[in-house]
Amino acid sequence: MLIDGKHYTTIMTEGDNPSEVMVIDQSMLPFEFRMVSLKSVEDVFAAISSMQVRGAPLIGVTAAYGLWLATLELTSLANDAAHIANAAKYLISSRPTAVNLEWAVKKQMEWLEGVDGRENLQAAALKGAGEIRRMEIENCRLIGVNGMPLIEEISKRKEGKRVNILTHCNAGWLACVDWGTATAPIYMAHDYGIDLHVWVDETRPRNQGSRLTAWELGKHGVPHTIITDNAGGYLMQKGQVDMVITGSDRTASNGDVANKTGTYLKALAARDNKIPFWVALPLSSIDLSVSNGLDGIGIEQRDSSEVTETEGWYNGEIINVRTAPLDSPVSNYGFDITPAALVTGLITEKGLCGANNKEIVNLFKE
Amino acid sequence: MLIDGKHYTTIMTEGDNPSEVMVIDQSMLPFEFRMVSLKSVEDVFAAISSMQVRGAPLIGVTAAYGLWLATLELTSLANDAAHIANAAKYLISSRPTAVNLEWAVKKQMEWLEGVDGRENLQAAALKGAGEIRRMEIENCRLIGVNGMPLIEEISKRKEGKRVNILTHCNAGWLACVDWGTATAPIYMAHDYGIDLHVWVDETRPRNQGSRLTAWELGKHGVPHTIITDNAGGYLMQKGQVDMVITGSDRTASNGDVANKTGTYLKALAARDNKIPFWVALPLSSIDLSVSNGLDGIGIEQRDSSEVTETEGWYNGEIINVRTAPLDSPVSNYGFDITPAALVTGLITEKGLCGANNKEIVNLFKE
Repeated sequence: MLIDGKHYTTIMTEGDNPSEVMVIDQSMLPFEFRMVSLKSVEDVFAAISSMQVRGAPLIGVTAAYGLWLATLELTSLANDAAHIANAAKYLISSRPTAVNLEWAVKKQMEWLEGVDGRENLQAAALKGAGEIRRMEIENCRLIGVNGMPLIEEISKRKEGKRVNILTHCNAGWLACVDWGTATAPIYMAHDYGIDLHVWVDETRPRNQGSRLTAWELGKHGVPHTIITDNAGGYLMQKGQVDMVITGSDRTASNGDVANKTGTYLKALAARDNKIPFWVALPLSSIDLSVSNGLDGIGIEQRDSSEVTETEGWYNGEIINVRTAPLDSPVSNYGFDITPAALVTGLITEKGLCGANNKEIVNLFKE
Repeated sequence: MLIDGKHYTTIMTEGDNPSEVMVIDQSMLPFEFRMVSLKSVEDVFAAISSMQVRGAPLIGVTAAYGLWLATLELTSLANDAAHIANAAKYLISSRPTAVNLEWAVKKQMEWLEGVDGRENLQAAALKGAGEIRRMEIENCRLIGVNGMPLIEEISKRKEGKRVNILTHCNAGWLACVDWGTATAPIYMAHDYGIDLHVWVDETRPRNQGSRLTAWELGKHGVPHTIITDNAGGYLMQKGQVDMVITGSDRTASNGDVANKTGTYLKALAARDNKIPFWVALPLSSIDLSVSNGLDGIGIEQRDSSEVTETEGWYNGEIINVRTAPLDSPVSNYGFDITPAALVTGLITEKGLCGANNKEIVNLFKE
């Protein structure tokens, strides 16, 4: 999407014969915008583990390019295969819980299987990484194409008056390569000329909403307003929200949605105020092996310092301030489960779909 | 309540012939605990406007003592009445929206009406302030007495297993003089030996939960855990919350509850998980002139910097870090409305009461 009028993606190579990968350093956003160059497997590992790149789809694409960089580091025929295999293991360990990361690395390894010769390996790895990147962009674009009519419909019903959309966390292009998931219909509708405005939940504890979603919407020129996670309910009561769109980290086959903690509370408020609640996600985020989200999807407890401290900008640097007593315990579940009954529907690259087993299974069959 | 084993109140005078008022400097909590001495009307004004003292009941009591300090400043018989009247106006202006502040100052002025002579005025003002302080403590104590059986009942049903109570914001003794409102039943049940634990919502944007509620519970020895405002829903889904108790800034005659932003979302989650949701408040917080909370109670928009910045402790001082882009707009409603239908009942100094017009009006008649 656009940053100050210029088109960017979160990860890219330049020219026909590249030797590095450029990524946006997201750890500095929204305070400083800078691209960093990744030139080695080591650089890729560091960028993922330090969260300079984050978001499941983007992590996968970055690791795929990491394996290409591994093929540029080959030094002796005897060790080439081992170097690539070790790089694959090393890259997978950079963020152990990210499913897309392992998927992308294994996909690359499949494609490299049986390729002979250093130059062929390099060409195949670059092509593979490019293919995974292209697929991610295309999935997000199709989510936008399929979701945009939902916004258009509300706009028509309101006779062109501004459509107010609430989102939680960052399911934006920064988490992907371009478009984003929850934001894809929003960007597309905005670019199409529909008057819309986004309520951006700040999304404690890591503030991905106020730091990333607000920044990317602002840079693309999409009208938006930051609110605390507590505020969305009152805005809905007051008729200030026309629809909710969030992403999903993992959705069960019955339509239960695991997403950033707090999503469930917004879904409850949406139902109480008769506001549609949509979840935008690629099919790869639907886990058909889990039949029930609340029982079947384990939720990780994250570090307590995320709650007792807040990371922010002070005197030109990023620091952490403490906001709690030293000796108070903390609980910090990173995600919650929104029961399918609260979800109006799913927006996927293959189309819209009810949040129920029958429609979800059918979508996979198509 | 206790701080490290010693009994404190938020405001006190010492000895039979005091010349100053001691208050806890709440702006430094939870990072530093210190009492400050207020010796003049000017000191009281500064303590209220800078939020060294905060919480509607405590502000009222502090202003009442402010008027006593005004009587210690009388210099000439010709100007005495004018000095007191000016002090009253000045004190009321220290936090314009605080209803208790105006009430306490006007009550003092009534009591001083017709009192002659400097020493009599001083004695009457000290007595009046002490009376308002005593009433605030007694109201909170009675809220505790009336609310404790609700906790006891759950404890019995769980056969003595720990009772988990969720609260939002700070409706604790720091906002009052002692006991608090939402916390009064909790402290009383804890002191009585009931095994309980409190989930403390951090309460963005000002973090009164993680800064004040966690601190006061911890100092009194009450088991508690800080969570983000987003986390309560998942804990309720997982059976980790037995009841919710919050305070209220203003409650309509139909039982609609205005309280700190985010309260409504917790009430929705409580209903969805069949968890009782109680609101503890003195009758003075019920506004019989408002028949419907959502239409009748105006909600103030507060400063946007509360959302774009977080105040916290860094290198031995309190600073603000920025957590949002410089150019993103912000909306910051300070409160929301929990519809009466979501409220199990009210806990008042006169007893429990359903959140409906009939029971509320009856309570006032008793």
